[in-house]
Amino acid sequence: MSLPDQVIINLCPTGMVPRRAKVPDVPITPDEIAKDVRRCYEAGAGMVHLHAREDDEEPTWSAQRFTDIVDAVVTLTPDIVLVVTTSGRNWSELDKRAASLTVDNLARPEMASLTLGSMNFVSGPSVNSPETIEGLARAMQERDIVPELEIFDIGMVNYANYLISRGILKPPYYLNILFGSIGTAEVSAANAAAVLSSLPQPSTWAFAGIGRFQLAANSLALSLGGHVRVGLEDNPYLDWKTKEPTTNPRLVERIVRIAREMGREPATPQQVREIIGLPQVVRT
Amino acid sequence: MSLPDQVIINLCPTGMVPRRAKVPDVPITPDEIAKDVRRCYEAGAGMVHLHAREDDEEPTWSAQRFTDIVDAVVTLTPDIVLVVTTSGRNWSELDKRAASLTVDNLARPEMASLTLGSMNFVSGPSVNSPETIEGLARAMQERDIVPELEIFDIGMVNYANYLISRGILKPPYYLNILFGSIGTAEVSAANAAAVLSSLPQPSTWAFAGIGRFQLAANSLALSLGGHVRVGLEDNPYLDWKTKEPTTNPRLVERIVRIAREMGREPATPQQVREIIGLPQVVRT
Repeated sequence: MSLPDQVIINLCPTGMVPRRAKVPDVPITPDEIAKDVRRCYEAGAGMVHLHAREDDEEPTWSAQRFTDIVDAVVTLTPDIVLVVTTSGRNWSELDKRAASLTVDNLARPEMASLTLGSMNFVSGPSVNSPETIEGLARAMQERDIVPELEIFDIGMVNYANYLISRGILKPPYYLNILFGSIGTAEVSAANAAAVLSSLPQPSTWAFAGIGRFQLAANSLALSLGGHVRVGLEDNPYLDWKTKEPTTNPRLVERIVRIAREMGREPATPQQVREIIGLPQVVRT
Repeated sequence: MSLPDQVIINLCPTGMVPRRAKVPDVPITPDEIAKDVRRCYEAGAGMVHLHAREDDEEPTWSAQRFTDIVDAVVTLTPDIVLVVTTSGRNWSELDKRAASLTVDNLARPEMASLTLGSMNFVSGPSVNSPETIEGLARAMQERDIVPELEIFDIGMVNYANYLISRGILKPPYYLNILFGSIGTAEVSAANAAAVLSSLPQPSTWAFAGIGRFQLAANSLALSLGGHVRVGLEDNPYLDWKTKEPTTNPRLVERIVRIAREMGREPATPQQVREIIGLPQVVRT
């Protein structure tokens, strides 16, 4: 194994959970998200995983709000790879979860999250039924949106391979493997090995870590030739000893410093598209 | 898994293979080794794995030469944890391999390498018969020297467990796991997992990487809560693209930068002794 020259930095700036009371620099409004994404892009982020919130910080599935966010983001950062969530954490209806896929004003999403199973978060169950997964996958294919396959445990890789065998998932395959949620796979060499040895081929993969495990998961991916997802959605602190709130740019800057020490440069958006196998997009 | 606060930086400055013609800054004489160790200690190295060379760069088993090196090292760096090689790469007789264990002038070695099997290097076989391993282990125990167990493949961990079950190895256990030699285990999540899941308990472990794999192996260990061995013995370049010769301090400084980004400080020699379970030593 030799390490690739580039590393994809997938920024997850907002999510559905962090609130300003505890995470003061989490970007909420379209304008805040756009400015934060721009700073993180300058630090090395080549793609961005977007969630939508109302001004009062409540998560929303509103296609209009997603459109406002995407428009604000591409106005400041035209070339970044756009990913939208289809998370069912706060609502389960397929049409609500698929609303983000319909964004089509200044730009369209190139990718969208697709969680390949149900699991428990600390806050309770997150349900993704086979019908929902299949419905979201088809809705993405109809719009030429590539899934960001969200993998929380080994079985979800199995399920990816099953959906591939049935033709419901088609290349290119991008897997974001999230370690460290209390009910799913923890960060360990054994779990990393189990996941990596069963990936669809060819595929692009990244490690994300929940909370205190973000840094270990990210750096493990760097060492094993993979890519990373980083941001306040997953982790509010740079240092879990002091628990001083941090910012998205600081989280990106740290993993970029580590990557560069290892001879890996952050992939530009166009390089991200080449690595994953997305169509090139030119926005101005 | 959460990451320990400290990381042991085990410096391997010289080895038996690198020559000045290709690696101009490899330290050879006792004075050169001592000065290099001091610089690396200031950069974060808490222990040093010593080989002996004559002035013409040829490896030697001479107890006198090992004594000169150890004396020079502790004169400049009194508190560093001292490890000597018992490598059989260039000679196989037990008394020659055990000569380094007899060093006892200004300081005695606290640890010594013990390779737990035979394997092929690129240059040819490296033979460590069961009798030699057992003989070296007993010679170490007689002198209260703790083995640095050198693990090149999964079977060598099995052999460690076998020797433990027979009482030939006793705690504390320190395993240096070397990935990336062409005939033995490569760096991968699966191999890391296999090794880590079969370690004797409790034990302290480090990852080393041969040549271009040093950085990946070291950073993998940082991400998994382990320790590192780093230096010109294993790897002559900071950057395998340019292949510009580097130095021991630069190799140490880079892994320390990465470790600090991950919230891990280099262990001082006294912390190294605590972590491994060695008796504290005060030299002045």
